[in-house]
Amino acid sequence: IVGFVSRIWKFFQKAWSIAVREPKKAIHGVKVGMALSVVSLFYYMRPLYDGVGGNAMWAVMTVVVVFEYTVGATLYKCVNRATGTFLAGALGLGVHWIANQSGEKFEPIILEVTVFLLAAATTFSRFIPTIKARFDYGATIFILTFSLVSVSGYRVDQLFELAHQRLSTIAIGISLCIITTMIFCPVWAGNELHYLITNNTEKIADSLNGCVVEYFGINANVNSKGEDSDKVFQGYKCVLNSKATEEAMANFARWEPAHGRFSFRHPWNEYLKVGVLLRKCAYCIESLNVSTNSDTEAPDFLKKHFSKYCIGLSSSSSDVLKELAVTMNTMTKSTKIDLMVHEMNNAVQELQGALKSLEKQPIIKDSKNGTEEGNKSSTFIVPLMEMVPIVSISTLLTEIAARIEK
Amino acid sequence: IVGFVSRIWKFFQKAWSIAVREPKKAIHGVKVGMALSVVSLFYYMRPLYDGVGGNAMWAVMTVVVVFEYTVGATLYKCVNRATGTFLAGALGLGVHWIANQSGEKFEPIILEVTVFLLAAATTFSRFIPTIKARFDYGATIFILTFSLVSVSGYRVDQLFELAHQRLSTIAIGISLCIITTMIFCPVWAGNELHYLITNNTEKIADSLNGCVVEYFGINANVNSKGEDSDKVFQGYKCVLNSKATEEAMANFARWEPAHGRFSFRHPWNEYLKVGVLLRKCAYCIESLNVSTNSDTEAPDFLKKHFSKYCIGLSSSSSDVLKELAVTMNTMTKSTKIDLMVHEMNNAVQELQGALKSLEKQPIIKDSKNGTEEGNKSSTFIVPLMEMVPIVSISTLLTEIAARIEK
Repeated sequence: IVGFVSRIWKFFQKAWSIAVREPKKAIHGVKVGMALSVVSLFYYMRPLYDGVGGNAMWAVMTVVVVFEYTVGATLYKCVNRATGTFLAGALGLGVHWIANQSGEKFEPIILEVTVFLLAAATTFSRFIPTIKARFDYGATIFILTFSLVSVSGYRVDQLFELAHQRLSTIAIGISLCIITTMIFCPVWAGNELHYLITNNTEKIADSLNGCVVEYFGINANVNSKGEDSDKVFQGYKCVLNSKATEEAMANFARWEPAHGRFSFRHPWNEYLKVGVLLRKCAYCIESLNVSTNSDTEAPDFLKKHFSKYCIGLSSSSSDVLKELAVTMNTMTKSTKIDLMVHEMNNAVQELQGALKSLEKQPIIKDSKNGTEEGNKSSTFIVPLMEMVPIVSISTLLTEIAARIEK
Repeated sequence: IVGFVSRIWKFFQKAWSIAVREPKKAIHGVKVGMALSVVSLFYYMRPLYDGVGGNAMWAVMTVVVVFEYTVGATLYKCVNRATGTFLAGALGLGVHWIANQSGEKFEPIILEVTVFLLAAATTFSRFIPTIKARFDYGATIFILTFSLVSVSGYRVDQLFELAHQRLSTIAIGISLCIITTMIFCPVWAGNELHYLITNNTEKIADSLNGCVVEYFGINANVNSKGEDSDKVFQGYKCVLNSKATEEAMANFARWEPAHGRFSFRHPWNEYLKVGVLLRKCAYCIESLNVSTNSDTEAPDFLKKHFSKYCIGLSSSSSDVLKELAVTMNTMTKSTKIDLMVHEMNNAVQELQGALKSLEKQPIIKDSKNGTEEGNKSSTFIVPLMEMVPIVSISTLLTEIAARIEK
């Protein structure tokens, strides 16, 4: 029992730490609670209350199911739910009318067959990527409403009134959700995406610098910082697997109205492109990291020889990345960036020069070890140089993005 | 209008091609249609039918919402829905009883406050990773049922009967779903995961080989194959972003009972570990690929010199990977694998030897160009060699996995 209590205690500690780190999430919980209380209050107060299970519940259900963390996701679900319900309701009424015309005997058969066909077709359509991205939830609601209308329609004749009530209660739920989610501490998917990409750019810059500095060993410095620098240095690992999050965010962001610095048709796709380039940089850092940790170390004199150029290159390219992050953040075209890219290209050429000059004088240190390990060291350098075209492409692209954003 | 029609036509073509490529998905649609028709049939036939919107709809709703593509996902939702409904129902009745005892005046206040608190707490708990992975859907259902019980409880006194009816209709829906999903062409999440990982291993092996062969240019051969070989060669890109899918699958697979060659507590986590290693290999191939496409090419004589060793190494390591895929597929310990790993290690040593011997005789070809480009070429080789420890780790790990699986 003590173990059980301590586990529960740990669980609460974890929850508390999440709440402290990301107060937005705790606020989201409060918002859901608020919206639900308001909806139920609405029904306590209402004099025209007409029995349980009828339509009162649809507003409550809508709030519970539709309310999501970001505004974009909520809007997506609201629009999908409304259109899904409306379409399926209309179609259900139509089918029901046809079935009614065709006599007592055929009615259930027609209804059964249409339910079967529509459910199968709609479920299958959810596997098609474009539908999946935009209308996944709507398809579920469509099936649900259609089959409910069909099943109930067989017995009840006041279908029109039912549909009307249903739609109005759903409208109440939806409008309440939209109001709560947008007015009270809104979490915009667009903002989150923007922040995520900017943050990832900074992480990549830090990791790049950290990785190179660690390799060329101002080790005393690194060790004194301990875990902290290790965390900075591992930052790129988040970037490696950020694809799914980015795409979901961009998808939701499309549903959002203009907010803050973002207009309605903000080019969210540009963010995805920048995300892809960042991920490529992260792959490069991963392979840099692998070569850093490989068994064979380059000899000290080579390290010293190259350290200046490598650190120069890495710091200049991480400067470029950081400047890019600032550019994205402020959504202005930076005047410094051209200069910095120029500087970075200079650093590349210096490094290449150093490589060549080393190869010119192999006589001085022609011990077999010397040059063989030189290869090793250069294999460390080259991924660094490979990053440069990527960085400059990403520079170009973000320039474009920044221009669109202005 | 012509444009619109042609777009719809294209859409249908796309849908058709998906259905042909993955008939399982089309069958899934048919299954959902079937389950829904059976549920509605159940209600057409039932003599004790007691009005619309009451409880008939809960069975339909359960089927629509709970029925998922894989058996694991369906079971996960069923268990979550059942437990969520039950817990929330019990708690709702309890709170309702307390509220009833405390008099007319306080009743709505108590109910409101509990709805608010529970909804906020439960919504927040969905952000905690362990809850999110296992009980995300259950939490939603918990909030839904609890607030429905609270709202309705204020007016209706036959709550117990209502709860009983609700639970029984949900039970009908759930059991129908489970039966349909498990008996008629089941799609097991575990199977899909197994297939995904095995397939990814093969893709990595093919890409590795393709990348190296292309670089050392049996170009005529590659061009004649055209697109086909390009597809094989790009296979590793799927692996780069497979993390989310793998984790979802493993999560659902845990809910599945024993099926086929998998027991109930099959070590699904091992698959995730193999997945991580495969992704590391994919990063290496990505960086190989980048260096292949870099501007500076190594001179021909160096290429020729190394091509033998490199192709040897890549083919032996891709053989190891393929053998691993076979091992995973058949879930037996392969006798050949030790031999193949040994062969691969030999290939590594040969390549290292070749590198060293090249460095020994820089006098013959001491043109500045020669050795400088040698560096370039070696940078191509080294990521290849970096793959080797990863491959051998993954060998070890899969051996372990295979042993557990036996």
